[in-house]
Amino acid sequence: MRLNYSHTLEQIAGMIDAKYVGDPGFVVSGFNEIHKVEPGDLTFVDHPKYYDKALKSEASTILINKEVDCPEGKALIFSDDPFRDYVFLTRQFRTFESAQSMISGSAAIGEGTVIQPGVFIGNQVNIGKNCIVHANVSVYDHSIIGDNVILHSGTVIGADAFYFKRRSDYWDKLESVGRAIIEDDVEIGACCTIDKGVSGDTVIGQGTKLDNHIQIGHDTVIGKNCLFAAQVGIAGCVIVEDDVILWGQVGVQKDLTIGKGAIVLGQSGIAKSIAGGKTYFGSPVQEAKDKMRELALLKRLPKIIEML
Amino acid sequence: MRLNYSHTLEQIAGMIDAKYVGDPGFVVSGFNEIHKVEPGDLTFVDHPKYYDKALKSEASTILINKEVDCPEGKALIFSDDPFRDYVFLTRQFRTFESAQSMISGSAAIGEGTVIQPGVFIGNQVNIGKNCIVHANVSVYDHSIIGDNVILHSGTVIGADAFYFKRRSDYWDKLESVGRAIIEDDVEIGACCTIDKGVSGDTVIGQGTKLDNHIQIGHDTVIGKNCLFAAQVGIAGCVIVEDDVILWGQVGVQKDLTIGKGAIVLGQSGIAKSIAGGKTYFGSPVQEAKDKMRELALLKRLPKIIEML
Amino acid sequence: MRLNYSHTLEQIAGMIDAKYVGDPGFVVSGFNEIHKVEPGDLTFVDHPKYYDKALKSEASTILINKEVDCPEGKALIFSDDPFRDYVFLTRQFRTFESAQSMISGSAAIGEGTVIQPGVFIGNQVNIGKNCIVHANVSVYDHSIIGDNVILHSGTVIGADAFYFKRRSDYWDKLESVGRAIIEDDVEIGACCTIDKGVSGDTVIGQGTKLDNHIQIGHDTVIGKNCLFAAQVGIAGCVIVEDDVILWGQVGVQKDLTIGKGAIVLGQSGIAKSIAGGKTYFGSPVQEAKDKMRELALLKRLPKIIEML
Repeated sequence: MRLNYSHTLEQIAGMIDAKYVGDPGFVVSGFNEIHKVEPGDLTFVDHPKYYDKALKSEASTILINKEVDCPEGKALIFSDDPFRDYVFLTRQFRTFESAQSMISGSAAIGEGTVIQPGVFIGNQVNIGKNCIVHANVSVYDHSIIGDNVILHSGTVIGADAFYFKRRSDYWDKLESVGRAIIEDDVEIGACCTIDKGVSGDTVIGQGTKLDNHIQIGHDTVIGKNCLFAAQVGIAGCVIVEDDVILWGQVGVQKDLTIGKGAIVLGQSGIAKSIAGGKTYFGSPVQEAKDKMRELALLKRLPKIIEML
Repeated sequence: MRLNYSHTLEQIAGMIDAKYVGDPGFVVSGFNEIHKVEPGDLTFVDHPKYYDKALKSEASTILINKEVDCPEGKALIFSDDPFRDYVFLTRQFRTFESAQSMISGSAAIGEGTVIQPGVFIGNQVNIGKNCIVHANVSVYDHSIIGDNVILHSGTVIGADAFYFKRRSDYWDKLESVGRAIIEDDVEIGACCTIDKGVSGDTVIGQGTKLDNHIQIGHDTVIGKNCLFAAQVGIAGCVIVEDDVILWGQVGVQKDLTIGKGAIVLGQSGIAKSIAGGKTYFGSPVQEAKDKMRELALLKRLPKIIEML
Repeated sequence: MRLNYSHTLEQIAGMIDAKYVGDPGFVVSGFNEIHKVEPGDLTFVDHPKYYDKALKSEASTILINKEVDCPEGKALIFSDDPFRDYVFLTRQFRTFESAQSMISGSAAIGEGTVIQPGVFIGNQVNIGKNCIVHANVSVYDHSIIGDNVILHSGTVIGADAFYFKRRSDYWDKLESVGRAIIEDDVEIGACCTIDKGVSGDTVIGQGTKLDNHIQIGHDTVIGKNCLFAAQVGIAGCVIVEDDVILWGQVGVQKDLTIGKGAIVLGQSGIAKSIAGGKTYFGSPVQEAKDKMRELALLKRLPKIIEML
């Protein structure tokens, strides 16, 4: 999440009444979760396993629960509970605002775009030209939709990320302050869900076509001209490169990359990154030709055992 | 389903013009399908395989298609078609009522709760305090929603159970007269469906978090602080104990129990009860470590066979 | 798609300024994609692999990108891009029209049918008697719904087919001009999607019952009294005969037939036609008894190998 205008380290630390290391006038220009940081960002880290990643990341300010040495050119803010304080801080800059009407007065809708009845368009939403938004679609606040986009009925753009931290006796929610961005020429089927980023953006790339009942998790970035069949589910923080085809009911776990032009057959499960330009099948996924050989062998197995 | 006030055996039998065994003034205080019965309930049974279960159940009155001996302290009502007459009777006490407005006049909504545009809230619905109900959610009649609940767009609470009896040339519907209950601090993602109970309650336990596109069947009871990823589907009459984690696209068949703290990896299929405290994978599911071993063996199999 | 009144070959060819072979007054009475053609139809073919199929099909007029001999009793129209011209032609006869109100003035709704709040009913929709259409359902233009049908909340009837042709650098959409037809006594759960046909009809047969989150692709024809559990997904151009039972999360690929009375267990994947009257399991599917034997063997395999 970019801030509309920058704040100083002193101001930010003051909001949570925290000690800090760095120039009081050091600039904080955004908030981002560690997967999405850019220079100027404040990020948080609360587990020793990720200290190093956070300190060496692009983030300029690190909200951390240990008094470590400050890397050069960066700033640190100390907190006994960085998750709690990060959620508190992001909420100061973007919070849920209720809407009074089906189409918010602060939404911008381009020329030639048709909004069918029953559509909800939240605050600060921006929709381009010549789109069709079919009946009963819901578009959450701050979503960005390009030109020539078609959204079918029942689809939900920009709902909250599914991102919780386990506390001793409850799940603590990381407030989502990112956005969902649908680029030009995208078509999204009925009853799909494209979650917003927790702090960065979820992106559906130009020309990509989604069938019905598809789930795209927070901060996932889909390339151009991809084609996903019905009931595909993709978790958060996934990168899908251009021209990828996923057939029906494929499931994709978080934090991985699917290479350009990969084709994944129906019902496959992807748990690790896969290279582009190949065809895959199975759960967990293998190259399709290997999986097919394995399945053929399995069928012949009784006879093979008998012959021994 | 509890009746608002009790009826007598004579009154109930009279409604379907049926013979009965028992004190005419014997009290019928509710209707329940055999999986959910409590003392005071009338239940039905129409298959010899289940006579014994019904007669020995907690139900006080049994609607049955055979003239068996009446167990002590109970009552019997005889019918040539107990299913038909049970549906007829429940319909006398709770039937579908159409609504005139998006928010029924008989719904109660707590302080601090935000209802976004396009939300439907049916008759007799009760929603607690400080909830957010996002745009285009639908809440059927008689649903109960606690405090601090978040329901995302497109989600449907309390639709009818998927429960049909096979007749010679059609599927006969068991009318749903139960409820959907969402306890405090639950968050339910976009495009989820939580069916009502056929006669008892479907329950999502306190603090549980559901991602998008999740299906919870009738009369299923989910414990506290569970976490289900997107596109999980759970059939009817399932018990999920506290702290269970189901990853994406897991499928769960009806009438089983998932033990406390179980973790089930993505795309697994659960056809029998599984113990708590373990991690599972596969369809049908096994302990994950066994399944992983099996998958590794399968990959090595061509070489093993060659070596023989 | 049937035309309201017939056009001549000369008129149709004139619309795309194309050369043709045949009597100028030859009748074109409809448009259909090759899977669905009837006598009188115009269809298109643009790949040599399918020339023969198109020329020998029931279609009377073939829009083709090669100057072949005209079969007797038929007509040909020549185009350098039959896909583009077919889309252009169908759009002349049926195009998307925006709606001004939740229930279109051109929709017909039968006696005794209840339309709950938030329901969208498009242009020229026809709904029969004694139906219940629950809140926030969306019914696209030209859909046909019979008597005694129940549609649960969030369900979408008649969205566009997911049918794109790969061009060098984008996906080109085949405009959907078919319909979705829901026959009498059908019940469709919450958050289901029944796509319209691309040029023919998608049909849900009389008495069939669908649970929640079910996807039915374009031009798929489901028989009578089928029962599909939650999250089943069926692609386009599938034929499901009567009395078929599909359990939860089953996936079905396009262009195949499931025989009468087949039962398919949960999470199975169907990639080829399967015969009726049997029970199936697995992905890809096998007869359930074979698959179960295979799974049992797999579990015993470590011991078998050890014994060798």
